[in-house]
Amino acid sequence: MRNFKFASPTEFLFGKETERNVGAEVKKYGKKVLVHYGGGHIKKNGLYDRVMESLKEQDIEITELGGVKANPDIGLVREGIALCKEKQVEVILAVGGGSVIDSAKAIGIGVYYEGDVWDFFLKKVPVERMMPLGVVLTIPATGSEASNTTVVTNSENGHLKRALSHSLLRPAFAVMNPELTYSLPAYQTAAGGVDIMSHVLERYFTREPGCGLTDRLCEATLKTMIRQLPAALEEPENYEARAEIMWAGTIAHNGILGVGRSEDWGSHMLGHELSAFYDMTHGATLAIMIPRWMEYVYQTDVPRFVKYAADVWGVEHDVFHPEKTALEGIHRTKEFFRSLGMPVSFADAGIGAERIDEMAENCTRFGAVGGFVKLEKEDCARIYRAALE
Amino acid sequence: MRNFKFASPTEFLFGKETERNVGAEVKKYGKKVLVHYGGGHIKKNGLYDRVMESLKEQDIEITELGGVKANPDIGLVREGIALCKEKQVEVILAVGGGSVIDSAKAIGIGVYYEGDVWDFFLKKVPVERMMPLGVVLTIPATGSEASNTTVVTNSENGHLKRALSHSLLRPAFAVMNPELTYSLPAYQTAAGGVDIMSHVLERYFTREPGCGLTDRLCEATLKTMIRQLPAALEEPENYEARAEIMWAGTIAHNGILGVGRSEDWGSHMLGHELSAFYDMTHGATLAIMIPRWMEYVYQTDVPRFVKYAADVWGVEHDVFHPEKTALEGIHRTKEFFRSLGMPVSFADAGIGAERIDEMAENCTRFGAVGGFVKLEKEDCARIYRAALE
Repeated sequence: MRNFKFASPTEFLFGKETERNVGAEVKKYGKKVLVHYGGGHIKKNGLYDRVMESLKEQDIEITELGGVKANPDIGLVREGIALCKEKQVEVILAVGGGSVIDSAKAIGIGVYYEGDVWDFFLKKVPVERMMPLGVVLTIPATGSEASNTTVVTNSENGHLKRALSHSLLRPAFAVMNPELTYSLPAYQTAAGGVDIMSHVLERYFTREPGCGLTDRLCEATLKTMIRQLPAALEEPENYEARAEIMWAGTIAHNGILGVGRSEDWGSHMLGHELSAFYDMTHGATLAIMIPRWMEYVYQTDVPRFVKYAADVWGVEHDVFHPEKTALEGIHRTKEFFRSLGMPVSFADAGIGAERIDEMAENCTRFGAVGGFVKLEKEDCARIYRAALE
Repeated sequence: MRNFKFASPTEFLFGKETERNVGAEVKKYGKKVLVHYGGGHIKKNGLYDRVMESLKEQDIEITELGGVKANPDIGLVREGIALCKEKQVEVILAVGGGSVIDSAKAIGIGVYYEGDVWDFFLKKVPVERMMPLGVVLTIPATGSEASNTTVVTNSENGHLKRALSHSLLRPAFAVMNPELTYSLPAYQTAAGGVDIMSHVLERYFTREPGCGLTDRLCEATLKTMIRQLPAALEEPENYEARAEIMWAGTIAHNGILGVGRSEDWGSHMLGHELSAFYDMTHGATLAIMIPRWMEYVYQTDVPRFVKYAADVWGVEHDVFHPEKTALEGIHRTKEFFRSLGMPVSFADAGIGAERIDEMAENCTRFGAVGGFVKLEKEDCARIYRAALE
């Protein structure tokens, strides 16, 4: 186990109807709020009204900025920064999923910087402060409600997608009502679920020995997702399933499952290119790439993949044929994603081989990717090709 | 799953030699520190010198207060408060185990109160502020480095032991170097380990349905302890074992294993009376009481005890005889504690039946105890009697 630092200061306010009290939470941090959100969904389902009502009850001065899209753009972030300065906003409330939260995080750091906020993502300047940020979470997936990370896209420069991590990027509080996810389309529930599982898997596949507790915590979280994702798809208003998925999304990405060990993130890098070239949902790209990544790398550490098969999927350990056990775990992963309605190949997603070289090139433009196995351009191309069918 | 709030803001600085940098951490919170500790152990093993050196490197003004004993007394707490006021201390550093940390927490709240600090424990006044508290942890056991709780004894009034919980009681940071536990006596390692397991078990036995993820996280933590406690006893300088135990102690009691559910704490209440009447180590009292409590209550929820047996101890589930499976899990718990060198009966601890009625009386003086099963005075007496041999 490596030395590590860990804190999870975000206050999670979890449960039914918790959004009705969001005004009082916001007020702890300021009297002028920027409410940041995406499209019209929260207006249709009444969440917008409930949030506004709660803010008004506390006499909070409200500024609004909607319009966040998937892969949030730096353009809207700049607009948000200008608005915050103009209205002397003191606290930001992100109402939505990962894109809205990530956009709000970028606004929250940009407000205190005189230059262009993209500088942070280019690592030209360090993060030194973020405006207090509250969240009302509507989609369990990215874990941004609990994480120290934001991912923003700069569409001016050929869709550059950049991640930024800093402990100051953790929200002050996150209101998490699982009931708000009852109305999510099945595809979004499934894609979000795969994203959550990926956050665990990227940490589970490590070269660091002596992290048995964290391994077990990872397995606990994965098994919960394997149990509850199909339950939520079958019965969208199953509170238990929705609640476990939402809480698992937080546990998966607040950092506790990565303490003291190296992580991988190769599958994420491979998937990001699919998003960039084909505008695919993040979770769907992971459903395609994770099992293919596993097939490509498992021989470098068969025991870990045997453990994965046995302790996550309950595969009987055939001690005389460990590779068979390992492969069965990978097979079950792929079939599980397929059973959720996710694509597991380029063909499933209606994609051909045409841009594989370009994607492999872009994926490794800053060098090899992945902590478990270093993937060079040619490795990436091979994994993409294996994913064709 | 019930609605809940959860945050774990304490920064854990975990790993080898981390105490050498404690001065820089302290300095983030102030330039005048009260260093609070127990007996001479930290002076003998060099920890005291390393901490002092690190503080002096940062030009921090040091005030010292040693002498904390097991079951920390309100008298020394009052002394600490007076010292902090006199020296205008800005931050407290607790170097030790749970007793030292709990004593420091009480000092930290008492400093800002004009009346007597015992008032907080009598619930006469609410906690409104605590001085920033840092910890250098030397004994993994109570989880106080991560918890929102302090337990202090008032020996003036017949050894009243009182717990106080508030989110402000969480330390600002905790330095956790597993190497510092290499020199712990076997008995203390074992008793601390039982305490850690008890913090999980008191949360595991709940009546709240729909908490599958938390159940699994509890099981992961318990299985880690079952694996690593014997390893640490066999090989005291096994870093992996010491590190996993130390981190498990934090996970067990920072609250994450109790979110959204009722907890029990009946075994703790039963054990506290053994400590009060016979001055026994907390973990040893739990080793006696937990299996006896299980035997007394398991029939009220056989499925949960079957799950415990199967998912924690790997007992094969005999579906035709679930009670047998449940009892086997309890039996393994008792035998495990015994294998660690802990007492599992009054006889093992050299105690007779003489004071059972008195203990049962005191245990329930504020009403029935335990959230899983409400134990009245007569229940407590029966459990004590069952523990005689």
